[in-house]
Amino acid sequence: MKHTAGELATYLGASLSGDARAPISGVAALEMAGAEDLIYVETARHLERASQSASKCVIAYSGAELPGKTILAIPSPKLAFAKAAEWLLPALAPVPGTHPTAIVSSTARIGRGVSVGPYAVIEDDVEISERSEVGAYGYVGRGSFIGASCRLFPRVTLYPGTRIGNRVIIHSGAVIGGDGFGYVFGEGRQWKFPQIGTVQIGDDVEIGANATIARGSLGSTEIGKGVKIDNLVHVAHNARVGEHSVIAAQTGISGSSTLGKQVIVGGQVGIGDHCTIEDGAVLGGQAGIPTGKTIRAGQTVWGTPARPVERFKEQYGWFSRLPDLAKRLKRLEQGNVGQK
Amino acid sequence: MKHTAGELATYLGASLSGDARAPISGVAALEMAGAEDLIYVETARHLERASQSASKCVIAYSGAELPGKTILAIPSPKLAFAKAAEWLLPALAPVPGTHPTAIVSSTARIGRGVSVGPYAVIEDDVEISERSEVGAYGYVGRGSFIGASCRLFPRVTLYPGTRIGNRVIIHSGAVIGGDGFGYVFGEGRQWKFPQIGTVQIGDDVEIGANATIARGSLGSTEIGKGVKIDNLVHVAHNARVGEHSVIAAQTGISGSSTLGKQVIVGGQVGIGDHCTIEDGAVLGGQAGIPTGKTIRAGQTVWGTPARPVERFKEQYGWFSRLPDLAKRLKRLEQGNVGQK
Amino acid sequence: MKHTAGELATYLGASLSGDARAPISGVAALEMAGAEDLIYVETARHLERASQSASKCVIAYSGAELPGKTILAIPSPKLAFAKAAEWLLPALAPVPGTHPTAIVSSTARIGRGVSVGPYAVIEDDVEISERSEVGAYGYVGRGSFIGASCRLFPRVTLYPGTRIGNRVIIHSGAVIGGDGFGYVFGEGRQWKFPQIGTVQIGDDVEIGANATIARGSLGSTEIGKGVKIDNLVHVAHNARVGEHSVIAAQTGISGSSTLGKQVIVGGQVGIGDHCTIEDGAVLGGQAGIPTGKTIRAGQTVWGTPARPVERFKEQYGWFSRLPDLAKRLKRLEQGNVGQK
Repeated sequence: MKHTAGELATYLGASLSGDARAPISGVAALEMAGAEDLIYVETARHLERASQSASKCVIAYSGAELPGKTILAIPSPKLAFAKAAEWLLPALAPVPGTHPTAIVSSTARIGRGVSVGPYAVIEDDVEISERSEVGAYGYVGRGSFIGASCRLFPRVTLYPGTRIGNRVIIHSGAVIGGDGFGYVFGEGRQWKFPQIGTVQIGDDVEIGANATIARGSLGSTEIGKGVKIDNLVHVAHNARVGEHSVIAAQTGISGSSTLGKQVIVGGQVGIGDHCTIEDGAVLGGQAGIPTGKTIRAGQTVWGTPARPVERFKEQYGWFSRLPDLAKRLKRLEQGNVGQK
Repeated sequence: MKHTAGELATYLGASLSGDARAPISGVAALEMAGAEDLIYVETARHLERASQSASKCVIAYSGAELPGKTILAIPSPKLAFAKAAEWLLPALAPVPGTHPTAIVSSTARIGRGVSVGPYAVIEDDVEISERSEVGAYGYVGRGSFIGASCRLFPRVTLYPGTRIGNRVIIHSGAVIGGDGFGYVFGEGRQWKFPQIGTVQIGDDVEIGANATIARGSLGSTEIGKGVKIDNLVHVAHNARVGEHSVIAAQTGISGSSTLGKQVIVGGQVGIGDHCTIEDGAVLGGQAGIPTGKTIRAGQTVWGTPARPVERFKEQYGWFSRLPDLAKRLKRLEQGNVGQK
Repeated sequence: MKHTAGELATYLGASLSGDARAPISGVAALEMAGAEDLIYVETARHLERASQSASKCVIAYSGAELPGKTILAIPSPKLAFAKAAEWLLPALAPVPGTHPTAIVSSTARIGRGVSVGPYAVIEDDVEISERSEVGAYGYVGRGSFIGASCRLFPRVTLYPGTRIGNRVIIHSGAVIGGDGFGYVFGEGRQWKFPQIGTVQIGDDVEIGANATIARGSLGSTEIGKGVKIDNLVHVAHNARVGEHSVIAAQTGISGSSTLGKQVIVGGQVGIGDHCTIEDGAVLGGQAGIPTGKTIRAGQTVWGTPARPVERFKEQYGWFSRLPDLAKRLKRLEQGNVGQK
């Protein structure tokens, strides 16, 4: 769908200079853009590359000079670009209907405009709300609920009783609602602790490929609205993740841990069980939070066990100089005090 | 299936006080329990919450006071609760039969009471023993063997020749028997080392969602009986995991490493190749065991490279105080001996 | 297919001693070999075990003494064994044809000798080149391209527009071309950054089970020829991996990072975004490369943040002795200079 620079400026609330009638049909990277592709420039560092782009329309910071281009000036160019992309390239509405190879229980309730792909299996008492899409091989277990305008890419698995909000995106291979991992050792073997709870996924959540989110053991596992979860992330039973938090790839959140709102979690972070990560905390990549720990609101931590990043860096700096410290200590022991 | 508190006390060997005829129909968390749901209290810390539960029947430690409740007193309440749950809520026997969309080779041998779900593919010379269930999209490669009373949730993949014991549970997306990762570099490229061995999974094993267990390169990869493996765990070619060991999420076990019996492995642990983890060792979350190392029986280790946890903690404590140590060293160098 | 020791010696360029007519029908581990199975001995350490093997034909280093065996002597026995295995046991050509349950778009172009397995879904405008195999449940998204002689094991997912070279092997559960993980926070929520780029997989690449490779956000994600990627690895949007690099299990490569040629990456390594790993670098298991860092060509690094392995080991050695260093410092402070 084609728009003009002027329409886009109005939509974004950006200040336009140049040709308001310049057509815009997509978005692209600087080097790959055609004349009608929108690009963006966040800092002066990329100004040179932007000026050489074939694109005729640029979202840029105020004051950016790009002679010959139509400029939409705005304080947060990258944010505006993301918004523009969503506006220019809305997700395709799925083609409504149930593929003839899909197996849909007669007790399932399928809303208007829903698309069910080839070889999907929809079990008893499932409800799928309007305009949602279950891709090829989608498995929706008994009694699950899927809200409106969701998109389940091919090969998503929902165990029985999973509850999904509206506008949720789930990528291929993700498994939602599998049993939590809990055993009690006794009489020479592991006894399985009951894993009969639920999973609740909020509105506007996105879940990456091959991620796993376990059901609660007795209670529920809860992913708040707007949370973004990357590929291969593991969320254990009874964990709770607060609204708009972002969790990068291969992170693991252990049982009964709680993340607040707008927490940022780097890749490969390990969060032990019964931890509390307060609102707005930031966990650096590969950080490890030991069982039961609390990370305070807004704090940025790193390392295993994790500590405030500035302290970690200072300590790690001295770690690097340990061989030198040891030499200096030895010199002192040999009586060379003050002779450095 | 409904039982009474008296029957349950007998089954568990617990000492009953209260109403032996109290009906019990399920298990639940303290806050979510109805009158007929069994709950448990492990320590005095949760006594208050238990007393407020709607549940009328509690498994508790000896001496726990819960006026008005029927109490089953026993030394290990959580273990008893797990046992009770298994007794009260036995896994549903699968509905026997082969779904009309399943593709089952004419040379496959399917035992009595086996359930094969929609779109499953059972290749040549497979044997599936009595009462086992292969869920939707289950792929069972040529010549594989599945013991009795197994449960393969939807979307499990067994590569050819995989051998699975009895009462094994495998969750969605798990891949058993894929090629190991071995190459030899020469003549400017990587040559694939043959990956033609086998995988053997013992009785009563549980394998989590999207976990991967590779076949042996020439020999076999072996998972001992009663082992529990969490989501997204990776077990490499020729590894061996001893009986009743427990491996938490996202751990990786490299080629030819051996774990003893009842080893406990935390989340995101990395075990290098050719390591030996002796019986009963405990590896803390994110610990790293370098290639070829041995962890002694019963030892608890942490860190990368891993060391006994008490030593790691002491060392890490000093790591935290490194900036202070460095200051003190500097003061000494400036001649301020003894003037602290 | 049966060969003789003499034929194999010629193929490998090995020097034969013993019976050139000795038949060879397979390869095996020392302990499991039959008389016609080829074995190999890399060092004198395994000579004893080799001499006890039932195998009659051994690839060995020059000068290895194995009375009664036919020996193929060559400088790199393991490499020669891998080459021999490939020669003796060529991958079975797939049975050409499309399974009647596969759903193949009328606009897809399927080459000669291609095999499409049960329940595969091939979308519009896909091209699959000659002799390639798409296993059961293979999902090939719209507009994707698969080169010649590829093998996609059951349950591989290619998102739309994925491009795969020749002789590529992809294991079960791998997801290629899923959306990258990029958001911009603003106005109280995360906005999805457009993920509309591509993925390009080079010739002779192998990708492990349940691995995920994201498409570029605006540009492309590129895996060079001959790269080997283990199970559960994550490669993020716009990353580039150079030729013949090897990436062990559960490693994560963040957005826009670049790996050179023949880089060796251990298991569970985390590479931050915008990193540069130059040719031939080696990253030890669990190493962490912080955002934007460069690892120089040929360097071996370890730890988080990663540093040259020799330095890391020296520093870690002193870390281990920190309690002792602290004691010595205290003694000095108490005036005991030189009295060690």
